[in-house]
Amino acid sequence: MSLSSSTEDSSSPAIITCKAAVAWGAGEPLVMEEVELSPPHPHEIRIKVFSSSLCRSDISAWESQAIFPRIFGHEASGIVESIGEGVTEFKEGDHVLTVFTGECRTCRQCRSGKSNVCQVLGLERRGVMHSDQRTRFSIKGKPVFHYCAVSSFSEYTVVHSGCAVKVSPNAPLEKICLLSCGVAAGLGAAWNVAGVSEGSTVVIFGLGTVGLSVAQGARLKGASRIIGVDTNPDKCEKAKAFGVTEFINPSDSSEPIQQVIKRITDGGADYSFECIGDTGMITTALQSCCDGWGLTVTLGVPKVKPEMSAHYGLLLTGRTLKGTLFGGWKPKSDLPSLVDMYMNKEIEVDGFITHDLPFEDINTAFSLMTEGKCLRCVIHMPR
Amino acid sequence: MSLSSSTEDSSSPAIITCKAAVAWGAGEPLVMEEVELSPPHPHEIRIKVFSSSLCRSDISAWESQAIFPRIFGHEASGIVESIGEGVTEFKEGDHVLTVFTGECRTCRQCRSGKSNVCQVLGLERRGVMHSDQRTRFSIKGKPVFHYCAVSSFSEYTVVHSGCAVKVSPNAPLEKICLLSCGVAAGLGAAWNVAGVSEGSTVVIFGLGTVGLSVAQGARLKGASRIIGVDTNPDKCEKAKAFGVTEFINPSDSSEPIQQVIKRITDGGADYSFECIGDTGMITTALQSCCDGWGLTVTLGVPKVKPEMSAHYGLLLTGRTLKGTLFGGWKPKSDLPSLVDMYMNKEIEVDGFITHDLPFEDINTAFSLMTEGKCLRCVIHMPR
Repeated sequence: MSLSSSTEDSSSPAIITCKAAVAWGAGEPLVMEEVELSPPHPHEIRIKVFSSSLCRSDISAWESQAIFPRIFGHEASGIVESIGEGVTEFKEGDHVLTVFTGECRTCRQCRSGKSNVCQVLGLERRGVMHSDQRTRFSIKGKPVFHYCAVSSFSEYTVVHSGCAVKVSPNAPLEKICLLSCGVAAGLGAAWNVAGVSEGSTVVIFGLGTVGLSVAQGARLKGASRIIGVDTNPDKCEKAKAFGVTEFINPSDSSEPIQQVIKRITDGGADYSFECIGDTGMITTALQSCCDGWGLTVTLGVPKVKPEMSAHYGLLLTGRTLKGTLFGGWKPKSDLPSLVDMYMNKEIEVDGFITHDLPFEDINTAFSLMTEGKCLRCVIHMPR
Repeated sequence: MSLSSSTEDSSSPAIITCKAAVAWGAGEPLVMEEVELSPPHPHEIRIKVFSSSLCRSDISAWESQAIFPRIFGHEASGIVESIGEGVTEFKEGDHVLTVFTGECRTCRQCRSGKSNVCQVLGLERRGVMHSDQRTRFSIKGKPVFHYCAVSSFSEYTVVHSGCAVKVSPNAPLEKICLLSCGVAAGLGAAWNVAGVSEGSTVVIFGLGTVGLSVAQGARLKGASRIIGVDTNPDKCEKAKAFGVTEFINPSDSSEPIQQVIKRITDGGADYSFECIGDTGMITTALQSCCDGWGLTVTLGVPKVKPEMSAHYGLLLTGRTLKGTLFGGWKPKSDLPSLVDMYMNKEIEVDGFITHDLPFEDINTAFSLMTEGKCLRCVIHMPR
């Protein structure tokens, strides 16, 4: 980073320039650019990104969304570099995780004690910051858009203080970045949203990091059968390491997968999880869980068709369909204890990391994920 | 009734003939016919129907389904006339309610303790009896089909012993027939399925007997706002008697009803209930409940389009969609206590009865319901 000239008092944070991986168009390789990053505005913090893992949602948005130029990345760890006016929770040097959905602690949702869907700092889809609908990044004065108000594929970034969570300085930042999105989302879906019970049967569609985190969560709650479904046969071995007891590749059989599941589970699983991000699979997931108490949880963010549909009879016969963002975790309230669980070896995180890459190789990470050849690639910023 | 000649031992029940209201075609007025009714088969009972109220599902099936000739009616009370082989739970003279979804007490669902979706005696849609897929009714030897394996628009009917519930002989059969379907379904949706909590906000789409029973259930659980939505302005007064605190006619405003609800409830209700039987309304009901913990319960059996659809974002932001048949009640296990609650004046039933009609005027009941001019018409059999 280099400090730019600034008219501000010298003790105030100044505009900095740093390297960021900028997406200029849908599906185009990212380009390493020198970007300007403004100081944190009131209630914001500027973070030196430490590590940032690549999540499937980054890819989906990069492939399909029309907001460019843009800096992706949202599953990240870092160290506070400077704080904006009014920030009391953080100080320079604090270790943090970023979160793609914040916690303001004052809105109806945050105050309810039963929701993590913050009305003030929720999922930001327009590529700007929550507070002023503007960007903090620019190249030669022209705005570069954010992703989920995090944009961690940059040496430095600015986030709202409600979108960062302070963590123990003893926790390895290069690992725990995974808890900032995918691993936490899967564990939370199994624990908070479904409440998987001991001895139950679980079926998981899509064995990426989120699906395998559901498997881990289900195993830790004592589920006796964890059926993993994925069209990629390479997922089988890893899946078993995370708790999947039966791996099914739907391509191996002409029988529709929901019929296979119903047949081998005497009428359907207790819980089914849609972790692919395909609304068409929601019906399959509903059909795969049983009458009476079958519960389907949908976690995926669909890449294409945003409308899901299902025959009403699937509901009338006692099924429940739930959705969740970030596994129901309230980030500030709950993430530190997940980090503690990791430190106490109560949950597995390291096993999801299939690749460690330096920042300059970020396009390799994009290729690996697009080709289904990784779980998590962790991108490490220059130290 | 008249006894037919029979080759059976004289102590065994014989074929009888009795009057039944037969539907010969979709939407055609019922015709009072002399029908033959076989003796109860093993594990079946024959019932002298006492009273049978007309439910919206009878109308929907009569208007649209292709199984004719048929005897409708499923919300009924009666007195056991004879029992089939192997029946130990009932004896001649017992007072009973019929149920359109039975309880075998042996299947996976019944044994689970968490489901009322009996796998053996569930909703029968083909117009026949569960055990042999044949009818017990005939006219001059030609089969007349059943409805929900109950067919109570007949002086006598035969039902599986798992589709009848013994009730106290002190309970007025001409009233409690309503507990055999609609009133119980609504109360159960509020209590068992949604678990409406004290101080909560509830919105109900469709203020027929089921919707108003949800209102009653919500009021008894201490909901502070119960918003009733119906396009029929005549429903307003009755709705308030059952607990609706605000009546909204969507036709009165050009603003979409879900926007009205969100506006007046600061972001959406805690619970919404779809009691119309219109899959298109499920999305509206989801949109009308709040992010984070909003719960939509769908009770209606759709008259036309069986596929429901919704934007995945409604789920991702923490909503839950549940369906229910008969309000989650296990009929044999739970109905007797609902009858007791009625007898103890803990729940209101009589107020739903807008018309009492003799059996021969059954077509008047069909007209009243088709025209939206009644809640429940109770049809009384000749005593």
